[in-house]
Amino acid sequence: MTDFAATRALFHLPQGLIYMDGNSLGPLPLAARRRVAAMLQEEWGGLLIRGWNEAGWMAEPRRLGDRIGRLIGAPQGSVIVGDTLSVKVFQALASALELRPDRRVILSDSGNFPSDLYMAEGLVRMLDRGHQLRIVAPEAVEDALDESVAVLMLTEVDYRTGRLHDMRKLTRKAHAAGALAIWDLAHSAGALPVDVETADADFAVGCTYKYLNGGPGAPAFIYVAGRHAALARPALSGWLGHAEPFAFELGYRAGAGIERMRIGTPPVIAMAALDAALDVWDGVSIGHVRKASTELAELFIAGVETDCPELRLASPRDAVHRGSQVSFRHEQGLAIMQALIARGVIGDFRAPDTIRFGFTPLYLGRQEVLDAIAILAEIMASRAWNRPEFRRKALVT
Amino acid sequence: MTDFAATRALFHLPQGLIYMDGNSLGPLPLAARRRVAAMLQEEWGGLLIRGWNEAGWMAEPRRLGDRIGRLIGAPQGSVIVGDTLSVKVFQALASALELRPDRRVILSDSGNFPSDLYMAEGLVRMLDRGHQLRIVAPEAVEDALDESVAVLMLTEVDYRTGRLHDMRKLTRKAHAAGALAIWDLAHSAGALPVDVETADADFAVGCTYKYLNGGPGAPAFIYVAGRHAALARPALSGWLGHAEPFAFELGYRAGAGIERMRIGTPPVIAMAALDAALDVWDGVSIGHVRKASTELAELFIAGVETDCPELRLASPRDAVHRGSQVSFRHEQGLAIMQALIARGVIGDFRAPDTIRFGFTPLYLGRQEVLDAIAILAEIMASRAWNRPEFRRKALVT
Repeated sequence: MTDFAATRALFHLPQGLIYMDGNSLGPLPLAARRRVAAMLQEEWGGLLIRGWNEAGWMAEPRRLGDRIGRLIGAPQGSVIVGDTLSVKVFQALASALELRPDRRVILSDSGNFPSDLYMAEGLVRMLDRGHQLRIVAPEAVEDALDESVAVLMLTEVDYRTGRLHDMRKLTRKAHAAGALAIWDLAHSAGALPVDVETADADFAVGCTYKYLNGGPGAPAFIYVAGRHAALARPALSGWLGHAEPFAFELGYRAGAGIERMRIGTPPVIAMAALDAALDVWDGVSIGHVRKASTELAELFIAGVETDCPELRLASPRDAVHRGSQVSFRHEQGLAIMQALIARGVIGDFRAPDTIRFGFTPLYLGRQEVLDAIAILAEIMASRAWNRPEFRRKALVT
Repeated sequence: MTDFAATRALFHLPQGLIYMDGNSLGPLPLAARRRVAAMLQEEWGGLLIRGWNEAGWMAEPRRLGDRIGRLIGAPQGSVIVGDTLSVKVFQALASALELRPDRRVILSDSGNFPSDLYMAEGLVRMLDRGHQLRIVAPEAVEDALDESVAVLMLTEVDYRTGRLHDMRKLTRKAHAAGALAIWDLAHSAGALPVDVETADADFAVGCTYKYLNGGPGAPAFIYVAGRHAALARPALSGWLGHAEPFAFELGYRAGAGIERMRIGTPPVIAMAALDAALDVWDGVSIGHVRKASTELAELFIAGVETDCPELRLASPRDAVHRGSQVSFRHEQGLAIMQALIARGVIGDFRAPDTIRFGFTPLYLGRQEVLDAIAILAEIMASRAWNRPEFRRKALVT
């Protein structure tokens, strides 16, 4: 079994805090401090411009992509790191639409993260050729997959409710309808077993600051299925995606395979932190993580439903249909979360009424979950959330 | 006068190295180590998700944008930091084309950095509405500014030759022809006085890892003139450019002013390094930097032309028409640069035959320039560049 006491010791976790927000921002891996300090002093400081070759900076997006690939079932050489998730969504979607030139519909759902929808909306507007972003309810996706759909674009795990789509089944349905499938793994990578190749995804994207613990604003990643790698035309055709960036030609020629999804100069300092964060996964079984996460979530749901009857479960009750987070609804959700945070239990809030809790066994244990239930129950019983300081504040993340 | 001995003491510079490549990657500001370490330990480590509010991470792109704005003559609230320069070029260009819907030509020159041209080429292809990227020689730009031009897109300082465009004059000409002007300040910001507002630029973009010393892959910036700020529609419409990102609406509404040029989650670790790097500029006059840089460059040109007659000056001889770097041509340029680097003089090479040297008085002094001339002269006189190890290697940056 994965030794979660050992993985927990790899993180900095402030004393007295119960951190249940790894679904938003993972905690600091202790090794990131040393790795970043060494990158600054020895590589940037000592090598200066030579770091691009001698410290391997230029190859990092591919090497880190391969490390992430192992966690999402992607073959070596099919994932690359860089930019933000929104930019990677845009690249995947623009490339996918070009591969389905005779169709005009992008199908997504109202459980997708808004930025994915906004990037799609912006692309549709920019293309100005009659494309349409069709947003349906999560449970209506399957029926909406008809012959008009060019691309099915979904986030596997709903950021508010934790509802988990069946990637394999929906991708098969999309392909049967002649559409391509883009999967956003923001709440999947590092949270549960993902196998983009077996699921036959066409493109996948994700971020590295949630369950992969890469740090605030850590770079995103993109996966392109082998069958598209040489065909997908990069929409954002930057110099580092060029076949020969250092030939400085005036015209663009797309690089080989996944390299063409690079855009500009890679974020070297952030990649050093991410590299250290990925070390945590050495020797960790994602299957064990999923099992332990489910146990913690079940414990939490049972405890909260027993002790806090005012809170309504907003997540699927069946763990098979749920990602790694659990949400409850209450009209005073924001105030309740503020009260929890004041007591050292860190979750987060999503408008209008949802409080979210992440279950990340790499650094969260059973006793903390029990303690969190007890504190939440006290807050609800005493109506401690009703104090002015909790009802006034606004959370922005 | 600016105290350049004092600014030099703010950087880590390896013993025995003469660093003349600040035009490619600035050196490590000593304070960046402390700032990044504190960001990791106290903010990410200690605050976790609360850092977005309590450590001000969410506001950093704007605050750093304002700091950069002071170096390029941009009013407060008109510059924002994020993404890579290539992505910011794309945003500026897509927005500018929308503001000139009746025109189809993007005018640029062969001295522009290839990534700017590639991003424009990709945008033209994506729009597929008859736009054309017209690339002329730098000296032909003015005559090519006719009524067909929607956008003039130039880099002020040529990355190979150091040739400096007259931003004010060309912007005026562009406006007279009914076109908009986008300026790439990659080799200008921190190198010479820039005043985007007085020059009346419509958009400006730049990177922060050259003369601003933000570190490898540090985030880029974008400036939008006040008259366009509320009109420019962001092409890459990510959630952090939304009017209310945390309302999580399904539809996009552009944020106020420069905020709409944000895309995804900002790179917090990289921004900490950049913030420390910008501290170096407190008390520094960009006019003094320009004057000192010009003196160093003149010294170098005179010395090299006297002692190394085989090398041909590739930069404008008149400092008024030159940025902060000087280039020479030689068919064995790559081998010569390798030999120089082996002797501790770091410049760089741009295919096919150009060797480049940057003159950055913040940390480069007169004696080092004299030493570099002497070492280069020795290499040329002894034909030391002709050794196999120098003729074999390839530089990638």
